Amino acid sequence: MTESESAAERWLSYRKEIKVLDATIRDGGLMNDSKFDDDVVRAVYEANVAAGVDYMEIGYINSQTQFPKKDFGPWRHCREQDLRRIVGDNDTSLKLSAMADAEKSDYETDILPKDQSVLDMIRVACYIHQIPTAIRMVEDAHNKGYETCVNIMAGSTLAERELDEALEMLAETPVNVIYVVDSFGFLYSEQIEALVEKHLAVLKGTGKEVGIHCHNNRQLAFANTIQAIIKGANYLDASFAGLGRAAGNCQLELLLSFLHNPNYHLRPVLACIQEHIEPMREKLMWGYDYPYMVTGIRNEHPRSGMAFNASKDRGDIVKFYDSMIAEE
Amino acid sequence: MTESESAAERWLSYRKEIKVLDATIRDGGLMNDSKFDDDVVRAVYEANVAAGVDYMEIGYINSQTQFPKKDFGPWRHCREQDLRRIVGDNDTSLKLSAMADAEKSDYETDILPKDQSVLDMIRVACYIHQIPTAIRMVEDAHNKGYETCVNIMAGSTLAERELDEALEMLAETPVNVIYVVDSFGFLYSEQIEALVEKHLAVLKGTGKEVGIHCHNNRQLAFANTIQAIIKGANYLDASFAGLGRAAGNCQLELLLSFLHNPNYHLRPVLACIQEHIEPMREKLMWGYDYPYMVTGIRNEHPRSGMAFNASKDRGDIVKFYDSMIAEE
Repeated sequence: MTESESAAERWLSYRKEIKVLDATIRDGGLMNDSKFDDDVVRAVYEANVAAGVDYMEIGYINSQTQFPKKDFGPWRHCREQDLRRIVGDNDTSLKLSAMADAEKSDYETDILPKDQSVLDMIRVACYIHQIPTAIRMVEDAHNKGYETCVNIMAGSTLAERELDEALEMLAETPVNVIYVVDSFGFLYSEQIEALVEKHLAVLKGTGKEVGIHCHNNRQLAFANTIQAIIKGANYLDASFAGLGRAAGNCQLELLLSFLHNPNYHLRPVLACIQEHIEPMREKLMWGYDYPYMVTGIRNEHPRSGMAFNASKDRGDIVKFYDSMIAEE
Repeated sequence: MTESESAAERWLSYRKEIKVLDATIRDGGLMNDSKFDDDVVRAVYEANVAAGVDYMEIGYINSQTQFPKKDFGPWRHCREQDLRRIVGDNDTSLKLSAMADAEKSDYETDILPKDQSVLDMIRVACYIHQIPTAIRMVEDAHNKGYETCVNIMAGSTLAERELDEALEMLAETPVNVIYVVDSFGFLYSEQIEALVEKHLAVLKGTGKEVGIHCHNNRQLAFANTIQAIIKGANYLDASFAGLGRAAGNCQLELLLSFLHNPNYHLRPVLACIQEHIEPMREKLMWGYDYPYMVTGIRNEHPRSGMAFNASKDRGDIVKFYDSMIAEE
């Protein structure tokens, strides 16, 4: 029995390999075109440092052509001067990451060599058919000196054979972490377990880690994160108050209070939520809600639910449900 | 492999032994002294019938001395004339249950013989030290002709030896179902699994079923219900929009959409939620919220969180957190 297996089987111990990644500004940026005020980003940064969180994903490092500065905030592009305005030289134990979307990032030019950046990790997000592009992006970031990670999105829709192939291809790359990503908030425990087990089996002996990124459409984001931990995932995504696209992510406050690592602290997270995050809820409209539940049940992208909640019909959940059935 | 084991191992099948119990009016009554308008109770009843739900727990059958009629609504006492005003002779496939609290119910006089009542099941709620009283209540209800059930409350605080003794005692009674009850919303999957397995082991061969009743303090009510299903629990408590004490219960809409039994229908539940349940949320203040999360993390009764949310300090989650730490 390895140390990690034995820790997983105890209820009061903790696994020191576990890393918590706060994705608040990055995933939450999908609800406001990444237009967070500097004071919010700074508050989240400082709370992460105080809470002992391992990584903060501070935004996307995506194309200024595809996401013009007139329409999107600085956390869609993560230019160095924007980052340093918040974190200075980041003389803390908190690592910083940015996400580059396959085919939406001018990564070759926009991602600087590591010795010129405060970023520590580049996370590549891709759909399964973009794996060759993702691998090229991973190699670029690795060669520039970064830790790297791949998030294969829409994990609840992947053809088993394609996922197997993707994992075998990724196993040959320098990528450090591969995530199970339930973009649609569809999966439940047994499916999460099967996916994590599959990833670990293919990656066995490579030294690569498996991560978990959940959405809360069926109020299973935290629970599924727990199941992934039990099966051996060591990189855990969460966000303050679950702020993220549509139903949002695993709540950081729930996750930190569940993990037994004494380096993690709940109070700074609650304070930041109270002062900076909850005041944005009415405008950003993230979190568990019936339209997102319906898209989650149906294993669909939440975009129809987001459009409905932004319309005058918000609250007429039967109307939304009927419209989805009618489209079948 | 039994049929039930094999169904549990398939993702698309369903277990015909599973029974869903809606506890909206009973558990939700803890947020409004059981003062629901008749039209709400009738709407929930009709939605349950239309949705194919198996049982509706329509209230408590508790003492009018301890819960005077001037302070508590009719759903704290479940007198026959109140029940029949809503359900008539209940000429439907929906069974009706009422909960009698140990030491709070004049069960010998207030529970009529089954042939004089529209109730089908009496559920006895007790704390572990009240097991002898609970057994007497089960025998009374059984002898009167009812299905019976015992909910041992505060399941996350039970001494293992006491629970073992309680289960052995209950195994000798005519009780039909014994519930794992996470009153404080503290437990996570591995603990739920261990409890369900323990119950099933002791009850093996008796023909008795195991049930699950969860609270949502850590957003694990639905997830824990799933884990209990996987392990073999067949009686599942839920409520419309999760309406129940403090953080509330497992959401019926999530549970029905998860189960694959074609007898269950989601739309009537959504319609009732939209028209009757959500309009009560602001006043009744149930559902996942930070103070309830904090009591859940601490494995405590939610009463301090309920008092805080009813005070002028509502929303000052750091103040509540600090007050709980200070009391340690």
